[in-house]
Amino acid sequence: MPSKKLEISDVGEKRLIKRLLSRSRRSIPHSLFFKNFFDGNSLKSLDDDAALLSLGDQYLVVTSDLLFEPSHFPMKMSPLEKGMKSVVVNLSDLAAMGARPLGIFMSMGLPPNLLLEDFDLLVEGILKTCEDYDIALLGGDTNQTNEITLCGTALGMVDQDKVLMKYGAQKGDLVAVTGNLGSAAAGFEVLSLDDSVMEVFNPGEKDEILKTALQPEARVKEGRILAESNATSCTDISDGLVSELGEIIAANEEKIGIRFYEDKIPIRPILDVVARISGKNIREMVMYYGEDFELLFTINSKDFGYLKEKMEVHVIGEVTSSGRIEMIDKGGETNILVPRGYEHLNKQK
Amino acid sequence: MPSKKLEISDVGEKRLIKRLLSRSRRSIPHSLFFKNFFDGNSLKSLDDDAALLSLGDQYLVVTSDLLFEPSHFPMKMSPLEKGMKSVVVNLSDLAAMGARPLGIFMSMGLPPNLLLEDFDLLVEGILKTCEDYDIALLGGDTNQTNEITLCGTALGMVDQDKVLMKYGAQKGDLVAVTGNLGSAAAGFEVLSLDDSVMEVFNPGEKDEILKTALQPEARVKEGRILAESNATSCTDISDGLVSELGEIIAANEEKIGIRFYEDKIPIRPILDVVARISGKNIREMVMYYGEDFELLFTINSKDFGYLKEKMEVHVIGEVTSSGRIEMIDKGGETNILVPRGYEHLNKQK
Repeated sequence: MPSKKLEISDVGEKRLIKRLLSRSRRSIPHSLFFKNFFDGNSLKSLDDDAALLSLGDQYLVVTSDLLFEPSHFPMKMSPLEKGMKSVVVNLSDLAAMGARPLGIFMSMGLPPNLLLEDFDLLVEGILKTCEDYDIALLGGDTNQTNEITLCGTALGMVDQDKVLMKYGAQKGDLVAVTGNLGSAAAGFEVLSLDDSVMEVFNPGEKDEILKTALQPEARVKEGRILAESNATSCTDISDGLVSELGEIIAANEEKIGIRFYEDKIPIRPILDVVARISGKNIREMVMYYGEDFELLFTINSKDFGYLKEKMEVHVIGEVTSSGRIEMIDKGGETNILVPRGYEHLNKQK
Repeated sequence: MPSKKLEISDVGEKRLIKRLLSRSRRSIPHSLFFKNFFDGNSLKSLDDDAALLSLGDQYLVVTSDLLFEPSHFPMKMSPLEKGMKSVVVNLSDLAAMGARPLGIFMSMGLPPNLLLEDFDLLVEGILKTCEDYDIALLGGDTNQTNEITLCGTALGMVDQDKVLMKYGAQKGDLVAVTGNLGSAAAGFEVLSLDDSVMEVFNPGEKDEILKTALQPEARVKEGRILAESNATSCTDISDGLVSELGEIIAANEEKIGIRFYEDKIPIRPILDVVARISGKNIREMVMYYGEDFELLFTINSKDFGYLKEKMEVHVIGEVTSSGRIEMIDKGGETNILVPRGYEHLNKQK
């Protein structure tokens, strides 16, 4: 029987990236001449799409994100909103490291039949978001593609002794998030529903989740407060809570686990209505979907008092030494969860 | 009669970028806080896809390029070669500024049915090229797309008093290139020819132009020598000689022009054979196609002696004050050329 050749969708995104990075390690030592330019600490390559360059007592953080239609831009997203999102996802990466954003490049792939007015709206969305976050658009580039493709590269700065990473959580730390989860997922569900059912939703609440889905925000201010408050680890929730919890556990060299409580996760009341109308599982929206771009972080309880005075936070659990993700459900039962979230390049199973 | 709405292909890439950048200026002043981090000179945004950050007496150069199938990766390009090219085009941008490359990020869009072995070859091409140029792969990211899409972001450093830009050419400067032009174009022509005609080509020469087409190199070493030699302006020839000459003229605030001599352009002898067999115009290959990634630069004749001892260069003309591109053809006639080269998003006319 001839063996079928493996396709990358047989492997999945996370394992592909691991495969790539495990092989890329070998190219890092070649960059020792970095030391001629940057003082001492040279360069850190991270297990995600960001790198740190040591500059005095600060790091320059560089991060890059590639967004495509239709994966990242749902049908009902306007050109303005696509432009906005392309900046926000990059700023969210910087926020998760506690960095102050400085500027962004935007390389664009555009279909030739894109209307000029839509191009202008796309650019307007990019520029408006740059203004909102007080950063510079450093450059742009256009190419011809079949689908809108936006590759942003953002630069930021953070004090070396403040930088937030995925690793660093300690047993006993509190686990917390900066805001409601599941709102983006619910918003996208509502977008896919028939107009005739819209009247069941409270219009104000509906608008809020649509806004989270279509015009997400990067928690830049919150990230910087977390850095000042000595949070021990941090990531943005782009791929779903459980997936990101798994990332924080995996990033630590020591064995840690996380226990969290379903009823402590902040959610908007409208999610129950959306789940009922759409037939979708509310846990799926809250714990696995992502796209809310809230920050997930850990912090020593002694630092929590300072933090709580500075911003809204929601403690959802604590760091353990179990090596696992335990979810205490509303009935008080313990559930062991396996990290999974939105993952590209996975075969439908 | 209803007016038809404009599509971006009615405008073309260069005008789109101008449109984008003219509007983006307004976001630059917002980044004044840069001055808190970088000494004095803060940040320069360029009229292309690179930015300079002032660090002491050096600039950190950041450049980003987005490559797609099929625009940038011809059918017969192997996965290994696609990976190589994705790094080289970014390093070529750094070379054109005289910068020493440090590292690169690579965000990849991949079709789910891509064979795992082809993914590995793609990554091998990226890593091999990083090793060849002694730079670090700083990070990677994968996403699901219909066609292979590679967005590289490269970082480099250059002394502030040495940096090469598109502007700076002075009347009377020599205009020169670092190597043969038209080889990539000829290589791509050969790739499209039927196997039965291959015997007319000298195999060694054929292999050389195929290599230029499929495995281009970035003139990093040459760029740094040009920076040391006080070249007055520089760009890489990605979009064709005449197009890049137009860029150098347009980048200057003062009115300059360029006169060049057709018979001084270095070309491989095989190009005549390729032109005859393929029926393509040799001037089209040499002056308009691009993709050779040689450097085009201007230099004061007093600095030329120093440069000539350091590397191979080919003077093709001189900077004038005419405001035009004049090509003196092999018959001694003066031809006024209009900048055009490979341009995305242009309607076929």
